[in-house]
Amino acid sequence: MTHQMSEGMRACIEDCFKCHSVCLGTATAHCLEMGGKHVEPDHFRLMLACAEICQTSANMMLIGTELHRRTCGICAEVCEACARSCEHVGGIQECVEACRHCAESCRRMAA
Amino acid sequence: MTHQMSEGMRACIEDCFKCHSVCLGTATAHCLEMGGKHVEPDHFRLMLACAEICQTSANMMLIGTELHRRTCGICAEVCEACARSCEHVGGIQECVEACRHCAESCRRMAA
Amino acid sequence: MTHQMSEGMRACIEDCFKCHSVCLGTATAHCLEMGGKHVEPDHFRLMLACAEICQTSANMMLIGTELHRRTCGICAEVCEACARSCEHVGGIQECVEACRHCAESCRRMAA
Amino acid sequence: MTHQMSEGMRACIEDCFKCHSVCLGTATAHCLEMGGKHVEPDHFRLMLACAEICQTSANMMLIGTELHRRTCGICAEVCEACARSCEHVGGIQECVEACRHCAESCRRMAA
Repeated sequence: MTHQMSEGMRACIEDCFKCHSVCLGTATAHCLEMGGKHVEPDHFRLMLACAEICQTSANMMLIGTELHRRTCGICAEVCEACARSCEHVGGIQECVEACRHCAESCRRMAA
Repeated sequence: MTHQMSEGMRACIEDCFKCHSVCLGTATAHCLEMGGKHVEPDHFRLMLACAEICQTSANMMLIGTELHRRTCGICAEVCEACARSCEHVGGIQECVEACRHCAESCRRMAA
Repeated sequence: MTHQMSEGMRACIEDCFKCHSVCLGTATAHCLEMGGKHVEPDHFRLMLACAEICQTSANMMLIGTELHRRTCGICAEVCEACARSCEHVGGIQECVEACRHCAESCRRMAA
Repeated sequence: MTHQMSEGMRACIEDCFKCHSVCLGTATAHCLEMGGKHVEPDHFRLMLACAEICQTSANMMLIGTELHRRTCGICAEVCEACARSCEHVGGIQECVEACRHCAESCRRMAA
């Protein structure tokens, strides 16, 4: 991170890595152990896709091109979709909240 | 990769990893050794950003959600921008061609 | 990739991205759809871990530090473990072969 | 992250993403703008390699296989090498400290 980086961007990078960590960690620990609807293909793929785009969204901000607006925009959408899917599965509220928070943060950076 | 995956997607994943490899390899070997305009901040950042989004574009196709259309769309734009920047710097024609080829491939997947 | 890069390294980078692609694609398409032993937690985590280390092993070679020997060494071990797990699950022979091939390639680079 | 995850691992994941962020952000903002010894090939490659292995070290802990011990071990070595290189270049103390802190944290997880 750099001195020139805005507080908003700094916070958004942290929110992205937090959401990446919660999605990847919840999917591979909690969801795989629970089985059933927790490993329903579309839900599980969405959790992995959310972890992936959050990581890249953070990296695009760190690399420092204007293109981060575009990746933050997609990241916000994927996080919203993942939050809805996690809500539907139930019992993974930490994931719902990390996704919602990251979506909000990314929407601000995308604007 | 999977049996159900279309030939177009299979090819696009390969094009993305090829472009990722050429951009990351050219930036860290050729560009750093040449110095001067090859390490001009905006150019160098664009090469790293292109490597990053190509990797993620491939991973989103591999994970298999419909969201790959969105990441392929951005990937095509970043590849075009990187191709123009590499053309302007000069002497890194392999990179120009990998970026143009990947952009074309990603545009088809994004449609 | 660069002119100075040896043919062995060039091939190893391709083997790593191939193995990464086959592991990530097979896990998220075939394994999630099949369910049962295909989503047994230890097996599924190993497939994701193998995809991750293969990607990084390739990236460390592309970045071009001597440290790639270390990441190639671990990558070979993870690929062998993943090949054994895939053999035990059965029906994902493409994955067994990609892992074995990548392990061999990485062992040569690690030496 | 998961309920079963130890506090030590949780902290190490955060240290890895912090070090990844500081290395990638400092390299692409500060170092590229400063030029000179800041973009000396071996130094710059080491910063990118450090960012890469820190990201993967965190991801291997999140995925939750025992293999994280091996990636944490390499990560600690790369972080130490990067800290020394940053100290030698000078003026990027935030990076020296993030690398040293992450190295210590990873050594504990590797044991």
